[in-house]
Amino acid sequence: MYQSKLFTKTRKEAPKDEVAKNAQLLIKGGFINKELAGVYSYLPLGLRVLNKICNIIREEMNAIGGQELFLTVLQDKEVWEKSGRWDDEVFNIWFKTKLKNGTELGLATTHEEPLTALMKNHIRSYKDLPVYPYQIQTKFRNEVRAKSGIMRGREFLMKDLYSFSKDTTEHEKFYELAKQAYKNIFARVGLGERTYITFASGGTFSKYSHEFQTLSEAGEDLIYICDKCHMAINKEIIKDQDKCPECGNKKLHEEKAIEVGNIFSLGTRFSDAFDLNYLDEKGEKKKVIMGSYGIGPGRLIGTVVESLSDEKGIIWPVEIAPFKVHIIEIGDSTEVKKISGELYKKLQKIGIEVLCDDRDARPGEKFGDSDLLGIPLRIVISEKTVVSGEYEVKERVGGKVSMVKEKELMDFIKDFK
Amino acid sequence: MYQSKLFTKTRKEAPKDEVAKNAQLLIKGGFINKELAGVYSYLPLGLRVLNKICNIIREEMNAIGGQELFLTVLQDKEVWEKSGRWDDEVFNIWFKTKLKNGTELGLATTHEEPLTALMKNHIRSYKDLPVYPYQIQTKFRNEVRAKSGIMRGREFLMKDLYSFSKDTTEHEKFYELAKQAYKNIFARVGLGERTYITFASGGTFSKYSHEFQTLSEAGEDLIYICDKCHMAINKEIIKDQDKCPECGNKKLHEEKAIEVGNIFSLGTRFSDAFDLNYLDEKGEKKKVIMGSYGIGPGRLIGTVVESLSDEKGIIWPVEIAPFKVHIIEIGDSTEVKKISGELYKKLQKIGIEVLCDDRDARPGEKFGDSDLLGIPLRIVISEKTVVSGEYEVKERVGGKVSMVKEKELMDFIKDFK
Repeated sequence: MYQSKLFTKTRKEAPKDEVAKNAQLLIKGGFINKELAGVYSYLPLGLRVLNKICNIIREEMNAIGGQELFLTVLQDKEVWEKSGRWDDEVFNIWFKTKLKNGTELGLATTHEEPLTALMKNHIRSYKDLPVYPYQIQTKFRNEVRAKSGIMRGREFLMKDLYSFSKDTTEHEKFYELAKQAYKNIFARVGLGERTYITFASGGTFSKYSHEFQTLSEAGEDLIYICDKCHMAINKEIIKDQDKCPECGNKKLHEEKAIEVGNIFSLGTRFSDAFDLNYLDEKGEKKKVIMGSYGIGPGRLIGTVVESLSDEKGIIWPVEIAPFKVHIIEIGDSTEVKKISGELYKKLQKIGIEVLCDDRDARPGEKFGDSDLLGIPLRIVISEKTVVSGEYEVKERVGGKVSMVKEKELMDFIKDFK
Repeated sequence: MYQSKLFTKTRKEAPKDEVAKNAQLLIKGGFINKELAGVYSYLPLGLRVLNKICNIIREEMNAIGGQELFLTVLQDKEVWEKSGRWDDEVFNIWFKTKLKNGTELGLATTHEEPLTALMKNHIRSYKDLPVYPYQIQTKFRNEVRAKSGIMRGREFLMKDLYSFSKDTTEHEKFYELAKQAYKNIFARVGLGERTYITFASGGTFSKYSHEFQTLSEAGEDLIYICDKCHMAINKEIIKDQDKCPECGNKKLHEEKAIEVGNIFSLGTRFSDAFDLNYLDEKGEKKKVIMGSYGIGPGRLIGTVVESLSDEKGIIWPVEIAPFKVHIIEIGDSTEVKKISGELYKKLQKIGIEVLCDDRDARPGEKFGDSDLLGIPLRIVISEKTVVSGEYEVKERVGGKVSMVKEKELMDFIKDFK
């Protein structure tokens, strides 16, 4: 895409009431727009990143048998009363609204209830199990304060998968598969090394749930890391559990972290409430065993920005970058335009996503914007490079600059595909 | 996909309170689920159709310069007060909700207001125009009654594009482009021949707007068709306009139709309210000229079902069918399973989406379900076809059955890709 055609512009300043670094940088780069505290829209550049993350998540969920569906925002009070989570005093993050006739509705905060109700139409026999529906859908949470940018919004996208299994053995097998799929996702979005599987409270039906916590100064959680087995324990349960539940190690150190995902055994919490049963091989009625598995794609974007940016701007990992290559035209001589245009076409032809800064702007502004936007590879084309017959190539991570001859350029770029 | 793995099941009956044919068939086929009156979730089969329609719309919007973004559901009262559309007495389809501190919020019914406010950050000069942002996002309308299935829901997806132009000439040029893009969309989803561009009320800023109306007995609109130029006039304006505004023809006939899209010149209605200006080539301040262009992907699905189904079930046009080919295994002999498995793999390899009914079910049930699901091409593999060395192929449209030899099968299928 040509930058002169992209309608969003970079900004010098984020709105004054925006305190989170992730939202500040994303707003300045033109990735998102703040509509209200905790409510952000995605502009074209931000939507490109969001779609890439969603597609990574889809691939990993489909690989473990996930089937995608799309539930609704508006929620039926009667369905939520069955599980006892309609009452604001029990579940205090509801946004509620009303039909013209006065009937109360809720805005979905999560989807265990409507999905369990729905599955009653489709689960009858052991032959119908296991099954793993998931969706990527907007959730709403009426947070009292919303100061963490897109890491904790009042309106945000969520991937939520729910597992329906015949028994705990089948459930646990899938739970481990999901754990691995989550590890793959965090690795692919560039957060693998700094993300820890973290023991957290399990609720009524199991001793632990598992969170995925990414180290960050902006984190709202405190975790205790075990360096021996690369796992962690959430502070919330550290009092009852002062050694690593995985390996018994007692040398743990505290770190701030962002919860980027969680997986949870639900047991029969919801199949009890909705009477979700199946007939086993012997014709006996059994309760379905459930689990839930969440990741917020928007929160992942916020976490990447918090964790990987530098003082100049954002640094996108290659797999989720809005574009892979950023061509910067310096000067508007015919030769610069010609060589830039040829490279642009060549890259597009081999399927490399490229943004070309063809704007009529000062070099300093172009370089500053390029650092802010954080595209992995920058290629400068100026009268100087035209004369030398080489391209000036700069990697956003580390800032290494190389002069590369044309015939070597494509080899260089391959790593950024 | 193997049908035994698909978790949704067909149903004999739709819920008793469901009166719309589109929703009845879609629920019976397991495409959608009714959560509340006018609120439907998409199950895996329905989501496949929905995604195909959304991608067709995206392709056509991108082709005329559209840039996709993703605005929010939650709406700021202050923004809507600027245009005078916050008040329930003016705009009576709002769902409203509240933050914990009592601040009122709305659920988006449309997005002219927030987008115009947003564009103030990005439009300054004539160089920034024209620009055509669009999104595919959920809208909410607090309808008093909701009896039209997914054709008029309380919660529904909408593609809305907004044009921002320097002057009316530039605006009208794009308006015509959008008209053609819309025609392309309706043709590709299989509704081209029965869809009429229809003159409708233009509001304050232009004499007419244009609706796209698809003939259907389930339609809520009445239109007057001009057979001479294949256009129509909405009944709402027929009193002021008793001849075809396009060609002057006075012989018009009344038909029921479903509004599947509309395009609207907004003039300076919103750029006045938000003071959205630009500096022209001479440095003079000018108002931006706007237009809006809507299509509901869910309503399109409903319209296809209303218009194209028969007494046996749904008939999907090829380009939006959830799968192109439906293999039906009859009997479970090793030979049937072997030949079915080979064909399944072969079709997948050449990129044809195939659903294989490998369920342990009676032939009658399989054929009935296949008619209900409406996949364009059915291939029956039974002990009889195995012996004859041919495939029994049935087209869902028209019901033509052919016996096809293996070497001719791929040629036959090509048309359904």
